[in-house]
Amino acid sequence: MPSPIRPTDDAARDLARRLMAQARFCALAVLDHDGAPLTSRIAFGQGPGGAPITLISDLSTHTRALLRDPRCSLLVGEPGTKGDPLTHPRLTLQGTARIVARDTPDHDGMQRNWLEKHPKSRLYIGFADFRFARFTISSGFLNGGFGKAFDLTAQDLGLA
Amino acid sequence: MPSPIRPTDDAARDLARRLMAQARFCALAVLDHDGAPLTSRIAFGQGPGGAPITLISDLSTHTRALLRDPRCSLLVGEPGTKGDPLTHPRLTLQGTARIVARDTPDHDGMQRNWLEKHPKSRLYIGFADFRFARFTISSGFLNGGFGKAFDLTAQDLGLA
Repeated sequence: MPSPIRPTDDAARDLARRLMAQARFCALAVLDHDGAPLTSRIAFGQGPGGAPITLISDLSTHTRALLRDPRCSLLVGEPGTKGDPLTHPRLTLQGTARIVARDTPDHDGMQRNWLEKHPKSRLYIGFADFRFARFTISSGFLNGGFGKAFDLTAQDLGLA
Repeated sequence: MPSPIRPTDDAARDLARRLMAQARFCALAVLDHDGAPLTSRIAFGQGPGGAPITLISDLSTHTRALLRDPRCSLLVGEPGTKGDPLTHPRLTLQGTARIVARDTPDHDGMQRNWLEKHPKSRLYIGFADFRFARFTISSGFLNGGFGKAFDLTAQDLGLA
């Protein structure tokens, strides 16, 4: 069968970067204690420099999973309420997550970015169990709708 | 720290079943060829009997992944466009996927259900590379918003 992957162009790079810039949440996939996939919803933002970040609770299953094995995947880009949801563009990212310690300059820079995009998180951002995680992205896959698929590098995503 | 998991009640069971009944798409998590998590968007429906099903292409990375290792996870339940997306209920499912052969009674029953919910898929449902997959769910996790989390069995979900 023919490959559905097209050569990456600037329009694909721009669309992928726009999906990240617009996203307020995403699906996260991690490995559970048996090595099976487990997906959940997390808040999504970008730290200084553009790296994807999230704010997660130590009480959650996904945080414990990431501390055990940092490999993960994110799905960014939400369909609207109309039409076939699979014609709406979405971006799959793969990489690893690292939890960021509170009371570090790294944390403080992320917190400034985060509160601009997620003002309602002010309600819980100070809770002792909430920490930022930064994602190091190794590759991306953009599905711009049927027949419009692109493999992307971290460089294509502006993250290299 | 205290467990955020509440005892399962009928309101939680009803909400989880409603999220499945309403969902037209979901996030799928599978294992890639290295055993790392990989997430993507798929269409979502329920077959005769209520089991979650999807219609996927043999050309896609997730289909090849499921043929290699059927373990997977689904995230069902979309936030609206307003408010904190993490206050909106969502359901994580874990289980396995099995691809269903075309030209079987099993396939035909699924196709009838599917076309009622996904009329636009009539455009490609007959393509040679598209097949149904049925998910056998072993467990669920309902997050009804902060502090409202429930572990669910297949029976709680009406799938046992």
